[in-house]
Amino acid sequence: MNKDELLAKAQKPARDAMKLHPFYQGKIEVALKAAVRDYGDFAIWYTPGVAAPCKAIHNDVQEVYRHTNKANFVAVVSDGTRVLGLGDIGPEASLPVMEGKALLFKYLGGVDAFPICVDTKDPDELINVVKLLQPSFGGINLEDIANPKCFYILDRLRAECHIPVWHDDQQGTACVTVAGLINALKIVGKKLSEVKIAMIGAGAANVATIRLLLAAGAVAGNIIMCDSKGILHRGRDDIPETYREKRGIMQQTNAEQRAGGIAEAMEDTDVVIALSRPGPDTIKKEWVSAMAEDAIVFACANPIPEIWPWEAKEAGAAVVSTGRSDFPNQVNNSMGFPAIFRGVLDVQARTITDTMCIAAAEELAACAAERGLYPDKILPTMDEWEVFPRVATATALQAVKEKVARLELSREVIYRLAVEKIGRAQQQTRVLMDSGTISMPPEE
Amino acid sequence: MNKDELLAKAQKPARDAMKLHPFYQGKIEVALKAAVRDYGDFAIWYTPGVAAPCKAIHNDVQEVYRHTNKANFVAVVSDGTRVLGLGDIGPEASLPVMEGKALLFKYLGGVDAFPICVDTKDPDELINVVKLLQPSFGGINLEDIANPKCFYILDRLRAECHIPVWHDDQQGTACVTVAGLINALKIVGKKLSEVKIAMIGAGAANVATIRLLLAAGAVAGNIIMCDSKGILHRGRDDIPETYREKRGIMQQTNAEQRAGGIAEAMEDTDVVIALSRPGPDTIKKEWVSAMAEDAIVFACANPIPEIWPWEAKEAGAAVVSTGRSDFPNQVNNSMGFPAIFRGVLDVQARTITDTMCIAAAEELAACAAERGLYPDKILPTMDEWEVFPRVATATALQAVKEKVARLELSREVIYRLAVEKIGRAQQQTRVLMDSGTISMPPEE
Repeated sequence: MNKDELLAKAQKPARDAMKLHPFYQGKIEVALKAAVRDYGDFAIWYTPGVAAPCKAIHNDVQEVYRHTNKANFVAVVSDGTRVLGLGDIGPEASLPVMEGKALLFKYLGGVDAFPICVDTKDPDELINVVKLLQPSFGGINLEDIANPKCFYILDRLRAECHIPVWHDDQQGTACVTVAGLINALKIVGKKLSEVKIAMIGAGAANVATIRLLLAAGAVAGNIIMCDSKGILHRGRDDIPETYREKRGIMQQTNAEQRAGGIAEAMEDTDVVIALSRPGPDTIKKEWVSAMAEDAIVFACANPIPEIWPWEAKEAGAAVVSTGRSDFPNQVNNSMGFPAIFRGVLDVQARTITDTMCIAAAEELAACAAERGLYPDKILPTMDEWEVFPRVATATALQAVKEKVARLELSREVIYRLAVEKIGRAQQQTRVLMDSGTISMPPEE
Repeated sequence: MNKDELLAKAQKPARDAMKLHPFYQGKIEVALKAAVRDYGDFAIWYTPGVAAPCKAIHNDVQEVYRHTNKANFVAVVSDGTRVLGLGDIGPEASLPVMEGKALLFKYLGGVDAFPICVDTKDPDELINVVKLLQPSFGGINLEDIANPKCFYILDRLRAECHIPVWHDDQQGTACVTVAGLINALKIVGKKLSEVKIAMIGAGAANVATIRLLLAAGAVAGNIIMCDSKGILHRGRDDIPETYREKRGIMQQTNAEQRAGGIAEAMEDTDVVIALSRPGPDTIKKEWVSAMAEDAIVFACANPIPEIWPWEAKEAGAAVVSTGRSDFPNQVNNSMGFPAIFRGVLDVQARTITDTMCIAAAEELAACAAERGLYPDKILPTMDEWEVFPRVATATALQAVKEKVARLELSREVIYRLAVEKIGRAQQQTRVLMDSGTISMPPEE
């Protein structure tokens, strides 16, 4: 396919979306989780019976996890300031994404996620709202919040909340990227602690990916990051104080103090991880050719990767990954957050540490590796059902190991819970579709 | 049944609740509203396809009602400061009630309500949170918030929100009480504009009920209200400035400037509406005997009414109503809010006016009247399915008439939508139960 054909193909989901969103008028809804045998049951679920569990929780607040769905409720929180690649389109316009996220949370992870679109651009006000909403939720998933305030918001909420807080654009993308890189490195026989890595783009995802790479064993000096103005090195004096994370990276990375642009950043490196401007010419073929032998190229801009995968291959790349589902090796957050939250919620983890993310990434990588690693198959895909309970289990066990889990469950119990809950969510969807409660979309 | 037997009976739902809440671990959950034919559909519901509806909403914010479930999402908001009769037990301990409310919203009204328990006791902070959450929701249901701040919170939110805000403990109770009173007065052949009414208790419900009674035609001077210190009259100097509503009532009501306690308040009145301290001896038999002929007694404290219904009858009351489902004439909010919100959401009303509440109350009364009025049957019950779409329609049509509805739909369309949506919610529950997705509770 050429660029026009690929662009046309990329527009099909958008056309379908404009027809099917009004057809369904919402992608998630509320359903009963408890039986209604007859109207007498309302005296159990509501007044007067409900007073008894209320009193039990008042006596011991942890009882809320036993008597309600708090343990499985996750708020998908956005202020709409950086929605997909669309920028600051506001909280109402972010709602379709947050509902979509909730749909994925349920179908792939058995998690009851609810979209909370907040009408403020003030980070402190957003932080305050999230803190005040904690009683209803077992966890918080931040989404599509502008850089650099997203770092400040996540850091403060992780420090100040007693339930786990996650920013999927940071931790989720970083986790799946690291999983892919683990396997890509296996294919080319290189070690994370030895490779030189160019990171193109200094947004939320790449900044979080650096942190996770370092925690996983990469060497800071071996990483060279580019923002829109070029390579980060200590001579750069144009990065505002508010970009604290980027300034930190500037200090820590790039041991050889290389300067220049993307071309210079990539030269001689083993890996390039690009999450920058849509391509296809953001990264040029000759820059890939100038990388080390058996180069690994992650070109993850959407909808068009920074370089077409076949061009990267022609230029000598051994493994190529993109953000698109129609090329091999999609870096897809949906392989991460539903399973990670499944595990986190089932052991009632108080936080999600970087080492828990790494445990998830390693399990994700192991799942793919067990099926055999090939340059065009470094990551599992969403239809590999069994991956989700395994990643959930790895995440939860790491939480138990790190003593951040309220429930110290065994591997067997955690795995069984994950299988049951994800299986139940998919069964729920199936029976609703089979019965016509969820209609099928009209034929084209 | 004697008092002990009734108390024992009243404890059965609590015992069941303590078994069944942990069995289900939550009374509502999230379900998919849109089909997943295969994993390719995720490209429509999430990135990249979802960007198209996001852009449409960014261009015209009203499009959010077409592309998402906002039109059917209601936040059930509480700070846990006055939960049932339990007082200030905190937001976590209020969650079972808010989940129960969401269950009723769905089953009886087809409304997707979500529990939002907010960790603050500061009314301004609560107001701020609710205002910031508007993008996700089509309406707000406030619940179990302490008096007098609940009046301030509701008034400000009604003035400052662009979606409808309702406080069920005020407007919901008032609406169903007025409906019951309309029919009770028909039975005894008296007119609302002429009767003398004693109101025992000056909490959120009774204060709201007075306002609705006045709007429906009652005469302020004919109303005598008692708080815990006795009758409100202009000589009372013990009511703090913060109790603005109660001070207003003190000025407006009680034309004859009666003083004293409950006994004096009830003497010679046609109606007593008590929402005060649990009985059975809060109201004495002889006080009912001292009321006017064909007295109407609403003794609505829970779990034990201010006076046993049979005692009120023996003392000469013509019609007796309580808050309990095991006596005739239950004043039950569940006959109000699910249908009222159904109507409000379907015409996208910007607010819920008192005249809309009265329209709902009159339709509720008419539904019962059409089946024939008897002293023991003044209100419909929850199993009278057809009542809900009718009340929804009456409410929505009043909104259209008052020009507070964004969608000016016809009676036929509104009624059909209500029938479809409530029917679908009950079908959804049925198929989930039939398929075992919702398990049946274990046998005793």
